[in-house]
Amino acid sequence: MSSGSDYAVQLQAAADFIRGNDDFLVVSHMQPDGDAAGSTFGVAWMLHAMNKRFTLINEGRMPEKFKFMAGSLPIIDYEKDRPNRMFGKVISVDCADFGRIGKVKDCFEPDALLLNIDHHATNDLFGTVNVVKADAAATVEVLYDLAVELGLPFSAEWNVCIYSGLLTDTGGFRYSNTSPKVLQIAADLLNRGVQGHDLAERLLETMTFGQISLLKKTLNTLSFSHDNRIAWLSVSLDDLRSSEAASEDMDGLVNYARNVEGVEVGMMFKEKQPGVVKVSLRSGGQANVAELAQRFGGGGHVRAAGCTIHGTLEEAIERVVQEVGMALS
Amino acid sequence: MSSGSDYAVQLQAAADFIRGNDDFLVVSHMQPDGDAAGSTFGVAWMLHAMNKRFTLINEGRMPEKFKFMAGSLPIIDYEKDRPNRMFGKVISVDCADFGRIGKVKDCFEPDALLLNIDHHATNDLFGTVNVVKADAAATVEVLYDLAVELGLPFSAEWNVCIYSGLLTDTGGFRYSNTSPKVLQIAADLLNRGVQGHDLAERLLETMTFGQISLLKKTLNTLSFSHDNRIAWLSVSLDDLRSSEAASEDMDGLVNYARNVEGVEVGMMFKEKQPGVVKVSLRSGGQANVAELAQRFGGGGHVRAAGCTIHGTLEEAIERVVQEVGMALS
Ligand SMILES: [Mn+2]
Ligand SMILES: [Mn+2]
Repeated sequence: MSSGSDYAVQLQAAADFIRGNDDFLVVSHMQPDGDAAGSTFGVAWMLHAMNKRFTLINEGRMPEKFKFMAGSLPIIDYEKDRPNRMFGKVISVDCADFGRIGKVKDCFEPDALLLNIDHHATNDLFGTVNVVKADAAATVEVLYDLAVELGLPFSAEWNVCIYSGLLTDTGGFRYSNTSPKVLQIAADLLNRGVQGHDLAERLLETMTFGQISLLKKTLNTLSFSHDNRIAWLSVSLDDLRSSEAASEDMDGLVNYARNVEGVEVGMMFKEKQPGVVKVSLRSGGQANVAELAQRFGGGGHVRAAGCTIHGTLEEAIERVVQEVGMALS
Repeated sequence: MSSGSDYAVQLQAAADFIRGNDDFLVVSHMQPDGDAAGSTFGVAWMLHAMNKRFTLINEGRMPEKFKFMAGSLPIIDYEKDRPNRMFGKVISVDCADFGRIGKVKDCFEPDALLLNIDHHATNDLFGTVNVVKADAAATVEVLYDLAVELGLPFSAEWNVCIYSGLLTDTGGFRYSNTSPKVLQIAADLLNRGVQGHDLAERLLETMTFGQISLLKKTLNTLSFSHDNRIAWLSVSLDDLRSSEAASEDMDGLVNYARNVEGVEVGMMFKEKQPGVVKVSLRSGGQANVAELAQRFGGGGHVRAAGCTIHGTLEEAIERVVQEVGMALS
């Protein structure tokens, strides 16, 4: 996306944009994740330190578990509290494209100036000023560089936002986007007093009632075949409903199948609607699951892929397990 | 345990011990964990780089999942392959006291020189030379400093051992022992080519059959009371036996109770033998579980404690849940 020196120029332009303006609207994407929350509140704490006025608005509710980053700062749910004014200066964080901002864009003035801070490789540079670092693990990593560029003191609240965004977008420093720079920033923040242990527990380990009861139901479906080289789980519409879990609570459950010692392909079968089953495939290392998913009209990456099967859960399981089993032998 | 400059002196003495000797026996504690394995093989790769002769012996089998750190280096299971010779130079890693070495000490010469490398605050300095850093997160952290002291090049194999020990002894950089220094070392190792993502998957996410089936059984016992401020799980002797899990596979399961949103005290009831139940208590933040455990003759820390109850699983659950419930209200 940008070479190192381009990035330095972008950071300077972003710093100038913030220094030269006031009264900002700060927005992230719909259904904010930990990095979206961390960068929204992180920007807010930076503006606060610079004595700038700002308003935080998001489409939909900021999830309860991220609100500790806000401290005393209010964030407006656009669906419930539409502001009765327009904004001429906007800072968008962690949005790969303009559409991800959602309805909040309805309160931008037509000629609003927009600072676009992000880390998605697909970002289409929709801002007036863009700071997009595609090899950053999280948007908060860009904010860290921006705070250095602005020469801001790192406040305790801001430190927590940055650490939180790093933790969540790297899966607790486990995903392959965990670069040396991520760990260096995290080390610096710990040095500045961040309680990394508490944040990890709060952000990575806490489960909702819905999540734990879905996990329980799903583990009860764990099955193996082909000398335990294939393992799978399934979730029916009834299971999802009765556990009061959200659809996104199924994310990651497939790993419980893949992570069993000796399993080469782990799968999750999710009944999306009667007669339609979404299949997630994960490779334990050797197997190319993208190739397997393609046989059913799906696709993905070598180690993580998916496809959709028309039929009942039982039919989908039988067809896919049989095909994967033949491919492994 | 030791001030900074003491530690520097200890490191020099350890470096002199290794430089001035040859033909070492390297040993860690019985039932080696990731740090014991990482520091055993880490020392071995250092000795290998220095063209020293060495033999690796442990009491009992090195767990399969740590063997990748060994590469081509053989490690002897003392129970199966007792060596027919004695050793005069010993390096012990990650052992808090001499007893933790187990039966392997039977092949030490009576006047053997022993280098004791460790990070336990309780280490009783049983070595001829001791390098014990109580604020190190893992023994591999001490090895990192020792490799710098020795001026050794960091080999790819060694890097993997050090990263693995850090990962496992900090619970994936989540426990409160995750210091800035731990993350700085990890950043340095990533810079040197370590695939942190693969190691995290292999060491932290892989479960044995026994572990996953025990998790499944245990989650089915998840219960709540007192407005869901108390949650508990239980494992009977039958559950443990039928899931073919090891006793240590129960470690950490209590967190599934504590980590549910809103839970103030999470507990695990383990039937140790008929009529004897071990209770682990974990606080979600406010509650002092050490004080609660003391009421039953147990003890521990504010956020993690335990006690033993005489009675059936059902009796233990009833008594402890009632007492904890009264304490919370
Ligand atoms: Mn992000
Ligand atoms: Mn250790």
